[in-house]
Amino acid sequence: MKSNSTIIKEYPVTNWTKRYLEIRNHSVEICKPLEIEDYVVQPIVDVSPPKWHLGHTTWFFETFILEPNFPGYQVFDAQYNFVFNSYYETIGARVIRTDRGNLSRPSVSDIYKYREYVDKQMEIFLESEFMTEKIEALLELGLNHEQQHQELLMTDIKYILGHNPLFPAYKNETDLIKIRQENSEMIQFSEGIYEIGFNGNGFCFDNELNRHKVYLNDFEISNQLVTNKEYLEFMNDGGYEDFRHWHAEGWDWVKQNQAKSPLYWHFIDGKWMNYTLNGLQEINLNESVCHINFFEASAFASWKVMRLPTEAEWEVASDYFNWGSRWEWTNSSYLPYPGFKKEAGAVGEYNGKFMVNQMVLRGASEATSIGHSRKTYRNFFQTHLKWQFTGIRLAK
Amino acid sequence: MKSNSTIIKEYPVTNWTKRYLEIRNHSVEICKPLEIEDYVVQPIVDVSPPKWHLGHTTWFFETFILEPNFPGYQVFDAQYNFVFNSYYETIGARVIRTDRGNLSRPSVSDIYKYREYVDKQMEIFLESEFMTEKIEALLELGLNHEQQHQELLMTDIKYILGHNPLFPAYKNETDLIKIRQENSEMIQFSEGIYEIGFNGNGFCFDNELNRHKVYLNDFEISNQLVTNKEYLEFMNDGGYEDFRHWHAEGWDWVKQNQAKSPLYWHFIDGKWMNYTLNGLQEINLNESVCHINFFEASAFASWKVMRLPTEAEWEVASDYFNWGSRWEWTNSSYLPYPGFKKEAGAVGEYNGKFMVNQMVLRGASEATSIGHSRKTYRNFFQTHLKWQFTGIRLAK
Amino acid sequence: MKSNSTIIKEYPVTNWTKRYLEIRNHSVEICKPLEIEDYVVQPIVDVSPPKWHLGHTTWFFETFILEPNFPGYQVFDAQYNFVFNSYYETIGARVIRTDRGNLSRPSVSDIYKYREYVDKQMEIFLESEFMTEKIEALLELGLNHEQQHQELLMTDIKYILGHNPLFPAYKNETDLIKIRQENSEMIQFSEGIYEIGFNGNGFCFDNELNRHKVYLNDFEISNQLVTNKEYLEFMNDGGYEDFRHWHAEGWDWVKQNQAKSPLYWHFIDGKWMNYTLNGLQEINLNESVCHINFFEASAFASWKVMRLPTEAEWEVASDYFNWGSRWEWTNSSYLPYPGFKKEAGAVGEYNGKFMVNQMVLRGASEATSIGHSRKTYRNFFQTHLKWQFTGIRLAK
Amino acid sequence: MKSNSTIIKEYPVTNWTKRYLEIRNHSVEICKPLEIEDYVVQPIVDVSPPKWHLGHTTWFFETFILEPNFPGYQVFDAQYNFVFNSYYETIGARVIRTDRGNLSRPSVSDIYKYREYVDKQMEIFLESEFMTEKIEALLELGLNHEQQHQELLMTDIKYILGHNPLFPAYKNETDLIKIRQENSEMIQFSEGIYEIGFNGNGFCFDNELNRHKVYLNDFEISNQLVTNKEYLEFMNDGGYEDFRHWHAEGWDWVKQNQAKSPLYWHFIDGKWMNYTLNGLQEINLNESVCHINFFEASAFASWKVMRLPTEAEWEVASDYFNWGSRWEWTNSSYLPYPGFKKEAGAVGEYNGKFMVNQMVLRGASEATSIGHSRKTYRNFFQTHLKWQFTGIRLAK
Repeated sequence: MKSNSTIIKEYPVTNWTKRYLEIRNHSVEICKPLEIEDYVVQPIVDVSPPKWHLGHTTWFFETFILEPNFPGYQVFDAQYNFVFNSYYETIGARVIRTDRGNLSRPSVSDIYKYREYVDKQMEIFLESEFMTEKIEALLELGLNHEQQHQELLMTDIKYILGHNPLFPAYKNETDLIKIRQENSEMIQFSEGIYEIGFNGNGFCFDNELNRHKVYLNDFEISNQLVTNKEYLEFMNDGGYEDFRHWHAEGWDWVKQNQAKSPLYWHFIDGKWMNYTLNGLQEINLNESVCHINFFEASAFASWKVMRLPTEAEWEVASDYFNWGSRWEWTNSSYLPYPGFKKEAGAVGEYNGKFMVNQMVLRGASEATSIGHSRKTYRNFFQTHLKWQFTGIRLAK
Repeated sequence: MKSNSTIIKEYPVTNWTKRYLEIRNHSVEICKPLEIEDYVVQPIVDVSPPKWHLGHTTWFFETFILEPNFPGYQVFDAQYNFVFNSYYETIGARVIRTDRGNLSRPSVSDIYKYREYVDKQMEIFLESEFMTEKIEALLELGLNHEQQHQELLMTDIKYILGHNPLFPAYKNETDLIKIRQENSEMIQFSEGIYEIGFNGNGFCFDNELNRHKVYLNDFEISNQLVTNKEYLEFMNDGGYEDFRHWHAEGWDWVKQNQAKSPLYWHFIDGKWMNYTLNGLQEINLNESVCHINFFEASAFASWKVMRLPTEAEWEVASDYFNWGSRWEWTNSSYLPYPGFKKEAGAVGEYNGKFMVNQMVLRGASEATSIGHSRKTYRNFFQTHLKWQFTGIRLAK
Repeated sequence: MKSNSTIIKEYPVTNWTKRYLEIRNHSVEICKPLEIEDYVVQPIVDVSPPKWHLGHTTWFFETFILEPNFPGYQVFDAQYNFVFNSYYETIGARVIRTDRGNLSRPSVSDIYKYREYVDKQMEIFLESEFMTEKIEALLELGLNHEQQHQELLMTDIKYILGHNPLFPAYKNETDLIKIRQENSEMIQFSEGIYEIGFNGNGFCFDNELNRHKVYLNDFEISNQLVTNKEYLEFMNDGGYEDFRHWHAEGWDWVKQNQAKSPLYWHFIDGKWMNYTLNGLQEINLNESVCHINFFEASAFASWKVMRLPTEAEWEVASDYFNWGSRWEWTNSSYLPYPGFKKEAGAVGEYNGKFMVNQMVLRGASEATSIGHSRKTYRNFFQTHLKWQFTGIRLAK
Repeated sequence: MKSNSTIIKEYPVTNWTKRYLEIRNHSVEICKPLEIEDYVVQPIVDVSPPKWHLGHTTWFFETFILEPNFPGYQVFDAQYNFVFNSYYETIGARVIRTDRGNLSRPSVSDIYKYREYVDKQMEIFLESEFMTEKIEALLELGLNHEQQHQELLMTDIKYILGHNPLFPAYKNETDLIKIRQENSEMIQFSEGIYEIGFNGNGFCFDNELNRHKVYLNDFEISNQLVTNKEYLEFMNDGGYEDFRHWHAEGWDWVKQNQAKSPLYWHFIDGKWMNYTLNGLQEINLNESVCHINFFEASAFASWKVMRLPTEAEWEVASDYFNWGSRWEWTNSSYLPYPGFKKEAGAVGEYNGKFMVNQMVLRGASEATSIGHSRKTYRNFFQTHLKWQFTGIRLAK
């Protein structure tokens, strides 16, 4: 959470209630196509049950906004702190181990009641005298937190349905085929001092600060993402069998997981099929490759005798290409910017404690909520994970 | 499955349709108090989601009765074989790994439709010319299989609800308090040849055959099960800290799991509480101890300077005491009786392949379906498992 | 340890010192061909470093004979209790976890000094007034314990050298080729009461008591062990790919370990080679198959449409065939005989605590020390282990 | 390996034979105090048996220098490639899995013969016409590789002896007590462009190139390492119990390992003792803390309300403080410098493939071989490892 008092931050929000309800309703909208059973399961540890996302984001507003700031507020259910607290070690003891995927209760219906209760209270609170400017930063954090979980809802729902042997579709629309419009070319940048990091008004996460100078060497970066066609060439050229393109740890990952394609690809009757939110479909060769992890992105770049960009290069260049359909792996580790400071208290756990052994992704994806992307945004994941909507942009 | 052709077996069933529907309906009855979410989760590998039990038992009748014997039968959904086949390696490839607890689909509603479809077809089949005497054995096996899963439904539901931090009750009745009526005493038996194993008409599992002679030494066996009061004495006397009472493997289990009480016991505010199907309640000292594993049963017996009975001793003595409220651990390994033969085909996998590294339990429990117990019944579980309604009867 | 006071046991040993030194020296003899490095390693948890065996057996005499019975005895090194105590929970705290295979010290030379010191003291003790009849049982136990470890020395040395990519030979003699002399035939026994278990004078382990009656049905048992030729037929007939012959747990073991042959067999340049104590050699088809586990023995028997004998059948029949070259898997679980009682104190841990989840092997092997076999001997191992000199005898 | 042809590199070595033999002999010197048994064990996967280090470094010269460049060279033993090849996937198949710690053969004596053989051949080679300038880079790489393994020999020997319950000393000298001479103070640097990376003649690793410009903000860095006294204050202040100072992954590590002190510290009879190469000794409060991992270094810095320096800050500041007794954790991930290129072939695997999920350490340690340190040197280890001689320097 951004809270560096030396930076003046004004939120250009004119109607907090409207903004709050729009964002909150979008989470519910995402879940509309689900069966109740889909809300409950957790196939791998990284994927949370949709009902947990709905409860956890609600718990955030209850715990950090309403309880400390709204006199007389009654918590919906005191037990929910055990269930919906995620990683916040500061908030209460966690006596009973509660694996999210084993919890049939609270039921989906109870969680929707919880949302309604908290949203009603928030509506009252936001129009009350207790909603002061001091709270804006925390409220905005809560809304951005909700938007982050909206993207996770999309990725987790896709994982749950895409790992069911019945391959149920999430929606039944025909996707607009995303065909690459322009020619692929390398954009050139010259050596020198550049600035990166957030500035201006509005919200940013603490990890986007401080804005600071970096020195970059000459570099080139592609104006296009790598396509399924190109990735298939890598696969067909034996990319997954040639250790020379892989980090040592990546090579171990390939062998242990017998990896040989992006996530959701299935070789059926001589054809590569792809599980999409519309169900199982043939690979679209012109689409940007998706669902590859850092090891794969890096090996692909090596096979192309190129490399992934650093996050500074990406940010500097980002005005010169289109981005937003894939989270783009960079070759930068997720580390603090100069002058980064952890906030005291639970919200201080937000970002800083993850700054080890993860790589930065830049951009946004087709699953990112509208209004939740900017060029200074630093997303981050561990190197083996591939269930996000990730892609590759090459540099040299 | 019993199918030794040298033994004449007549099933004293006069109305198969009625029997079929009664047993099938009981499974549905058991699930009535559940929320949809409760049907879906699998907290540990030994516990299956209730919806899986409902589907798997249905799949049994579809696969082994209707498909091979009912001309023109249309399977409800060809994909269900992947989902509801449990351990039968004979039946079809299992290409996609389907962890039961990760499968949100088929939905509970779909599975109830599946049950209704199969039950309707079975009703027609059972009244048709295709229902011949030859099929009775397999049908009876399917019904006993359903009853076995009814007990598992009870134990698995208890586990799912009892490991939820909200401790929801399954039912809201007051249990009749089971107070021990008679005095505890040891019943004495004299050395000699006895017979054990099933004989007579009606159904039995293949593992109860052949009836055969055993030679027993003098032995004594208690007419009562061990109570919570006695087990608490063992705990308070340091039973879980004294390796001398434990098998080496049991002692490793104690240390790795920091075991210190039966399953579902919680020490809260200075009192031992017990999660029951009616919710969290104070320990009832007069009740027979429940939910202990073989290691614990055996350590308790050692602490009492006694031992567990063998299954032969238990069967010989069973006419002289009341049984049926707890599955009683014996000190007999689950091994074939003399003359045991595995049936050819998938049903032959039923029992024989588990005859290693498991211990026999005798009797039945409060969760056993009515009509599904007899004194020759051989239940079996691995030595570390404690989620069944298990208890202790001492011998010497 | 046998100590049932109701049984009079006289040891027919006339010269304890001579017997002690002969047995002790044999352990040293076994290790003569080793390099110092061979004494140190522990490739799997079941295999102990030879130097540990040498130290542990010495520690037994120091701890159980000399310390309590020889006034003024000075322990060689007080720290050795940590290092050479195996599984005896009674004897001292084990604060620092000491993985046997990680301990470079005490050195091999130090351990030989330890042996010499203890042997010297034992020689004095055995000729002293302190060596009373009361001690004979414990002394005999120590000597049998040493002999058990002599067999483990052989199996563990074979494992260490046989899992080295250089395949060094332990000895460089040409084995006498063990060709099957007689024709294979089934010996028949009639239903009735038989007696098994140790009786007579001399030493036996506690697990061989009490001698007791058993009732056996008609059975037949082979006068021969299964040969490599027969086992190869099983392999070539797809024995390792056909789940129907395997226990469910055995089948899991096959798949997880990609098992396809006995231990030490390597398929090289189109031929099955076998690592023997004389190095890598071509399979001898006439030799009894060796180094198979219970799962494999049992699957082989199923493929032959036969079964493994029970231990009672084996013992009853053992006068009618030759045995002693392979430990023969039975289908009996390792459980107490009627009237079995654990001794108080550390030696009471000897056998009873292992009586769960292991199978009995009968006979002896080419690695068994001379004088350490008798027909009532009950060896036992877990079902997945195959590094002992194990074989198969069929019954039906 | 450095091989960027655009950089002229001249090695200021006048006598390669002398340099080769000096460095090679130092490895032997390090092992002089060992018992043969100490050469063999591998207590954890990160620690290699000393005999493996001696063989592996020799294998490097045989495989990369002699075989391709010395006509008529006969390999000492063709099997050794399996045994001493470490991570070089390019060189030959590795059919048999050879866990280093399980290999009793080749014996220590055989490995010394191997060293002597290769050293003799190298002496001849180095004075021959085949020793051309082209080979100098590879030879120098081999020598630096040997020096890296000399440090690993020291750390691994310490681990082997320090995890033996007898706590044997490696040497029996009294250490000069390293007392901090100067006062601790923060050195200040101003914002601006700096250059880092190797330049000049002589050897460097490929990861030290290219020399490049970086932009640094104002920073301060301590002229002293953190002492045992300061670290003990952190421990006594509950540093290991306060999650707020830890990365999320570090906190998991603390809990899983019940971490509470540096490696080799033992709390005995109310005092903190430290296993050193001279045996177990009381903590020296004035000594720089040693054997802490990245998580601990980072948590300590957080507790001090400071941070670890970046590697660029460290290198820029390194002329202004003493370094060389501890490898100093930085907060920089191990990533390629601008323009870094992997060499083709096996030596190209040297550094680049490890550039993920590791942190950079700068400086050198008391275990680093003389002549094997420079301020541009980039050492790297995973965040949980603490068996190297690692320390902490604070920045802000």
